[in-house]
Amino acid sequence: MIRFFVSPADISGDLIRLSADDAAHIRSLRLRPAETFAVCCGDGLDYICKLGERGDGSTAEIVDTRPSLGEPSVSCGAYIAWSSGDRLDYAVQKSVELGAREVVLFPSHRCEAVPRDAAKKTARLQRIALETAKQCGRGIVPRVAAAGSFDDAVGQAALAGLPLFLYEREDDLHLKQALEQSSGYLAEAPQAAVSVMTGPAGGFEPFEAERAKASGMVAVTLGARILRCETAPVIALAVVMFHTGNL
Amino acid sequence: MIRFFVSPADISGDLIRLSADDAAHIRSLRLRPAETFAVCCGDGLDYICKLGERGDGSTAEIVDTRPSLGEPSVSCGAYIAWSSGDRLDYAVQKSVELGAREVVLFPSHRCEAVPRDAAKKTARLQRIALETAKQCGRGIVPRVAAAGSFDDAVGQAALAGLPLFLYEREDDLHLKQALEQSSGYLAEAPQAAVSVMTGPAGGFEPFEAERAKASGMVAVTLGARILRCETAPVIALAVVMFHTGNL
Repeated sequence: MIRFFVSPADISGDLIRLSADDAAHIRSLRLRPAETFAVCCGDGLDYICKLGERGDGSTAEIVDTRPSLGEPSVSCGAYIAWSSGDRLDYAVQKSVELGAREVVLFPSHRCEAVPRDAAKKTARLQRIALETAKQCGRGIVPRVAAAGSFDDAVGQAALAGLPLFLYEREDDLHLKQALEQSSGYLAEAPQAAVSVMTGPAGGFEPFEAERAKASGMVAVTLGARILRCETAPVIALAVVMFHTGNL
Repeated sequence: MIRFFVSPADISGDLIRLSADDAAHIRSLRLRPAETFAVCCGDGLDYICKLGERGDGSTAEIVDTRPSLGEPSVSCGAYIAWSSGDRLDYAVQKSVELGAREVVLFPSHRCEAVPRDAAKKTARLQRIALETAKQCGRGIVPRVAAAGSFDDAVGQAALAGLPLFLYEREDDLHLKQALEQSSGYLAEAPQAAVSVMTGPAGGFEPFEAERAKASGMVAVTLGARILRCETAPVIALAVVMFHTGNL
């Protein structure tokens, strides 16, 4: 089912106001009067709608509401080091498919490329997040943001109940063990919060791992094979979602 | 550590014969005499080597052997429907990173594109598998092959002890449940075999799912969010590897 996102203020009674872009998109679909589509405002519901009276896509009329099945029970933030090429496009797209609540980009010592204009880059990635959220059936559009520094990113990530720092030199603790040790927290909380922080192509520097651990993050490994920097966040998210019954 | 792949016949005593391509690669690295690299022939070992006497990269001298840590304990085949663009490149690369033993491409009813010259396409994807195996530390180069038909692919995939058919219309059985139900098999076998079969962008047709089930495959769902055709095999592999302690 086609899906659009609005803000809560766009909904009044049974009517939803749609943006000019969405209206144009709806007109291009040439929907028949009885055909329905979903509208989400991030409140956990899918509003099932038909075209509003004018038929031009500027408004939608709510005919049913259902819980947004695309939203996981765990709130998971993906903290991903800046990288070049299309690797970030890929990482953001897959993170949204897998149910991440937000994606935060951050600079790390071995990053090949940290954009001068982070806002422009972030806006582009936010558009990818929107398109992906529509396609994969999310109930929200995950926020894409940039942290000003590595320390800022660690500070934010460490606020989660289970803040995971993926570190390839970590030999002691596997992600699987860390998740099993936190099974109580992950199961009990109605909205358990997990963050997953992954480094650049060259990996994290030891001093970065030390700072993350000092801030309360849990350093874990994903095993013997070396995952690329765009693969690691996606696989870590997949594992968290699987472990918490959200995949 | 830099890594090369040879066939068992290339190893005699402490000496390994390297291909002309690998010799050229080694020369370009300008290794110092004491520097080592890994050579694998698919026997479960990493042969740690230094340059052979001639120093031109045509031979390597074994100085140590270690188990190939990059190989998972579970043998997992990824059966992926043909798709267009760079999506297959991506799916093959990530499948190799995640530890797939082989990747088999197959035609499915809703495939947008099945190549006329499957051998040429497969050869290209085999090169991607080789490069990825070198980078991520595998002990083998996973084979990339093309099945002649959907039924051929199902026939091969169904030979695995746990043959999984990822079907988005399957509501009853989650991948998680299927893996938990097979925990005994996955844990006991020294080389448990799993296959993971995923469809094209439009999904499998119901008659295809029926045929797969009739052949003994287990239809499972990966949850409420719709994963793209290049994402699904990677996530399914990640979950299998995670569940079996290989991630």
